[in-house]
Amino acid sequence: MRSEEVYEKLKQWVEDNRSHTMLGEPAQYIPALANQDRDQLGICIMDIDGDTYMAGESDVTFTLQSISKIISFVALCHFKGLDFVLDKVDVEPTGESFNSIIPFEIHRPGKPFNPLINAGAITVASMLPGDNVSEKFERFLLFVEGMIGRQLELDQEVYESEWKTAHRNRALAYYLKESSLLDLDVEEALDIYIRLCAISIDLKDLAKIGLVIAHDGYDPIEKQQIFSSDVARIAKVLMVTCGMYNSSGKFAAHVGIPAKSGVSGGILASVPPKWHSPEKAFRKGCGIAVFSPAIDANGNSAAGTMLLRQISEEWDFSIF
Amino acid sequence: MRSEEVYEKLKQWVEDNRSHTMLGEPAQYIPALANQDRDQLGICIMDIDGDTYMAGESDVTFTLQSISKIISFVALCHFKGLDFVLDKVDVEPTGESFNSIIPFEIHRPGKPFNPLINAGAITVASMLPGDNVSEKFERFLLFVEGMIGRQLELDQEVYESEWKTAHRNRALAYYLKESSLLDLDVEEALDIYIRLCAISIDLKDLAKIGLVIAHDGYDPIEKQQIFSSDVARIAKVLMVTCGMYNSSGKFAAHVGIPAKSGVSGGILASVPPKWHSPEKAFRKGCGIAVFSPAIDANGNSAAGTMLLRQISEEWDFSIF
Amino acid sequence: MRSEEVYEKLKQWVEDNRSHTMLGEPAQYIPALANQDRDQLGICIMDIDGDTYMAGESDVTFTLQSISKIISFVALCHFKGLDFVLDKVDVEPTGESFNSIIPFEIHRPGKPFNPLINAGAITVASMLPGDNVSEKFERFLLFVEGMIGRQLELDQEVYESEWKTAHRNRALAYYLKESSLLDLDVEEALDIYIRLCAISIDLKDLAKIGLVIAHDGYDPIEKQQIFSSDVARIAKVLMVTCGMYNSSGKFAAHVGIPAKSGVSGGILASVPPKWHSPEKAFRKGCGIAVFSPAIDANGNSAAGTMLLRQISEEWDFSIF
Amino acid sequence: MRSEEVYEKLKQWVEDNRSHTMLGEPAQYIPALANQDRDQLGICIMDIDGDTYMAGESDVTFTLQSISKIISFVALCHFKGLDFVLDKVDVEPTGESFNSIIPFEIHRPGKPFNPLINAGAITVASMLPGDNVSEKFERFLLFVEGMIGRQLELDQEVYESEWKTAHRNRALAYYLKESSLLDLDVEEALDIYIRLCAISIDLKDLAKIGLVIAHDGYDPIEKQQIFSSDVARIAKVLMVTCGMYNSSGKFAAHVGIPAKSGVSGGILASVPPKWHSPEKAFRKGCGIAVFSPAIDANGNSAAGTMLLRQISEEWDFSIF
Repeated sequence: MRSEEVYEKLKQWVEDNRSHTMLGEPAQYIPALANQDRDQLGICIMDIDGDTYMAGESDVTFTLQSISKIISFVALCHFKGLDFVLDKVDVEPTGESFNSIIPFEIHRPGKPFNPLINAGAITVASMLPGDNVSEKFERFLLFVEGMIGRQLELDQEVYESEWKTAHRNRALAYYLKESSLLDLDVEEALDIYIRLCAISIDLKDLAKIGLVIAHDGYDPIEKQQIFSSDVARIAKVLMVTCGMYNSSGKFAAHVGIPAKSGVSGGILASVPPKWHSPEKAFRKGCGIAVFSPAIDANGNSAAGTMLLRQISEEWDFSIF
Repeated sequence: MRSEEVYEKLKQWVEDNRSHTMLGEPAQYIPALANQDRDQLGICIMDIDGDTYMAGESDVTFTLQSISKIISFVALCHFKGLDFVLDKVDVEPTGESFNSIIPFEIHRPGKPFNPLINAGAITVASMLPGDNVSEKFERFLLFVEGMIGRQLELDQEVYESEWKTAHRNRALAYYLKESSLLDLDVEEALDIYIRLCAISIDLKDLAKIGLVIAHDGYDPIEKQQIFSSDVARIAKVLMVTCGMYNSSGKFAAHVGIPAKSGVSGGILASVPPKWHSPEKAFRKGCGIAVFSPAIDANGNSAAGTMLLRQISEEWDFSIF
Repeated sequence: MRSEEVYEKLKQWVEDNRSHTMLGEPAQYIPALANQDRDQLGICIMDIDGDTYMAGESDVTFTLQSISKIISFVALCHFKGLDFVLDKVDVEPTGESFNSIIPFEIHRPGKPFNPLINAGAITVASMLPGDNVSEKFERFLLFVEGMIGRQLELDQEVYESEWKTAHRNRALAYYLKESSLLDLDVEEALDIYIRLCAISIDLKDLAKIGLVIAHDGYDPIEKQQIFSSDVARIAKVLMVTCGMYNSSGKFAAHVGIPAKSGVSGGILASVPPKWHSPEKAFRKGCGIAVFSPAIDANGNSAAGTMLLRQISEEWDFSIF
Repeated sequence: MRSEEVYEKLKQWVEDNRSHTMLGEPAQYIPALANQDRDQLGICIMDIDGDTYMAGESDVTFTLQSISKIISFVALCHFKGLDFVLDKVDVEPTGESFNSIIPFEIHRPGKPFNPLINAGAITVASMLPGDNVSEKFERFLLFVEGMIGRQLELDQEVYESEWKTAHRNRALAYYLKESSLLDLDVEEALDIYIRLCAISIDLKDLAKIGLVIAHDGYDPIEKQQIFSSDVARIAKVLMVTCGMYNSSGKFAAHVGIPAKSGVSGGILASVPPKWHSPEKAFRKGCGIAVFSPAIDANGNSAAGTMLLRQISEEWDFSIF
């Protein structure tokens, strides 16, 4: 498929799906998220040559929020090995909410169900290498910057807002501490976790991360292995089984692309190479980043989800 | 019944029940509790003339722990009125653990089930009058000191230990905050709550408090109304339905005295006046304090519970 | 207090509280209950001489529903002994709904929390003496008829309706069976349980049962011990801690009379003798039966509860 | 890869993994399962030409048990359409047990989380076409027989055993009825569900079913579309996210093949075609059936799981 055709279709599909922003609302719990322009919908697709295809409001930056959970899982596995991480956090989906304490009380003293619920993500963030929060954050940034080739920054306003209103996460973290599932000091664990959530990113960077995950940890542009294919494989498993909060199953059924969403309205998606007929686009896989701040009742970008569904159906991106 | 006979029987019953200390263990979570001599069993009964009947290791001091929950409930009702308090905390028993978060997640955004589970007690403590933690603590101490006629002190070592290990209570308190059930700053709410738990008390003081509750808030010795009979009535209801953690029902069935226990091994009990045959002791009611640090699986003093059961059976103290 | 005055007051209070029928609705799940006249409010009080004081719509019959739970508990304890029964069913209150399965899954394989939730009541009913359902039912009827001095009947229409719609109770009963907490065949256990619920009763009979429980199992009119005082004591404990569904705590706080309600709109209440000033009514205790079919969100007769609250306040009936 | 080599390797891997039967036990709840020879381990792989590769105890028959859940889901979608089915049953994974009632009580009145937990499977079975249980069963058999080309039979002994001990499933089914999630009569719904579980199958038949699912509902041997590719895709999603009970996430991470297990010890697995290097086996996909009756704590065949893991690693069968 020619580039012009890809552009043309993307542009069309963004407009087709823009009305779905009506099905959600920007996250309300901090002003920086609540005040976003709710009608935005933007996308960036990056192919294995590094070419990017953008449409809609594609020149935006937003904070990673829960998208950071899959990246910190990858980073921790890269730094400390899969066995170390899987010993601390399970990889099972859960039907409970991402911030539920019920599973711990019922099944305790079990480890967190998976790294994409808050309990697991706080645990993962707390174990990042570094002697203190600043070092952990720096090491993480360096890991991600190595993938995207530019420096990232913390959104200080979002970080401060989240820090102040993180009551539920504090509850979770103290519960983990009490259950001996957290070695780090609770406030430090929350600090690193919330910093990761508040990293500012743009669509192109996010698409690049998606591309590397899609290619089993290999950067096809810079031609280097960023992290092992084992780590990438489990990351894709987690994105499929738990990446879209409590509609992960439906997203897998109807879209079928490994993806992780955040309440800021971003979605990171990884399309692996597929045994395709030649007329399909992106046969060698791609990374996709979508942004649309109005999120649905499950916490996923409403229009972003629908846009990915249409793209997946049209270009047969489902891994199933 | 003559005093000598009362003394004699109490002494006998203490020895009868001392072996039940084997059925429990001192609370292990802080050194100050764990290191107590586990064989101790002491009791003090105070009658309406102020006469005290002691037996066993009766010259002990210990921290209030959960016993403070019923006193702070009484104090708050006294200062702010029953309606104010019952609007914030329910008075329903719960089958879940005293520190469970499950009920909040399932039934939210409900208020705490009752003031004797940790969630309710933290809420109650946070609302005590005073502009800051020190003032709240002072006002509470003055209220209790007015009842017992001597100054009370904080056990600094216990307070500091509990402050450092209060992960589960922090989890609960942040959960309450997130559910908008806590107005005060979380760390301040925990501070006042933990201070109340760490107040040092002896058996005679505790028996006096029990006596006043038994007499509907009236102090029969000093001949003054300390708090209203409505408050005292609801305090007794709470002691009966929720005072002995998850064996409150069994304690009501087999002992039948309004009581509140703490993990330090103390029990506060209030025996109301009863339409009795003349040969029974304490027909005009009494306050009882028991101490034996080995607590059972439910958190109640093992030997203390059995001693109260024997006394209640022998002297027909059950309100049922 | 003279009889005329008692009558006069009761009549007045019934009219005072009749408007509270607006706060509830007749139970909707079976036609026989749903079609009752929702404005009815009737009461009968029986004193120790057998004199009865009636007001409002006092000439009614209705089915026992959950009121049967406390009577079957008493009957089973009478026939098989307290130890046998308490080994099978606990006596702890629970904050969950009367028909919840959650506590079993979380705490399993524990026995039912108490005999007044459905799980406990089904277990109790299943253990009544008799080789089959008919015998069990006959033995139970004989026990109750011995107390009230007349024959009772099954409301066949209510029985058949409940049998057909007992899905939730079947779920509970099969869950108990799977957890080895039910020896009897499940369908037989449900049959006897539902028969007990469908027994037709009038206010005078119910007041008599309340009187016997209030008097520790002794019938002061016929001057015979019907069941042991130990059984009566635990019955009163259960009525106070769990008798009014999930507002048992509030009922204890504001009314303070041992009582058991049913969704048909009846309430059985037992007022024990009390060390009273002579101007109070019923100083030697009484049994009370109330009927008003509009039930509140917790399943208790709305106007019946309010009427009992007024009576208790006026005549100081609270045991607390 | 040559056939001889495939045979050789399969034979070797079966022996490598046979000792893992020690990590499980045959299901104990019915004699027919409990009495199986626990050391058995057999496998059959069928390629797109219909060639089968068998190793170990491959000449066995066993009952489908939970494997029937994915087949009945496919059958129902085929007969009534995806929209009809997804309106009745969700496709979300759950962290609770396959037979848990907790999620319904907490989240009610929600539909079952997915068709592979018992609640969902009972619902699905109840909606199969047919005016009565016999017809529903016949229609289902015909559907499966059309795929495998031979007649199937009910294992009458297993069916009767399961019917008698299905207390937990009866509890679930009555709970569904009470929640208006089941239209059919409860006993009929259980009957059809238990019949499906008790269908006797052999490895070759099961591998054929796996092959058709792997090929998007197309039978590459008979060259006909059995069911739509949309249905097959969602079946694979369900197998990946929920197919292996509470270790579905770990199975996806470490094995990565869409699969469904049953407590009889069978596993149905579907390996889709993959963009592979030529030296890998089964590049055009295959169906796999494994049988080893010793199941682990999660209900999955212990040695069967490990055998599939080795095969997937060696031949790169993971879809991730």
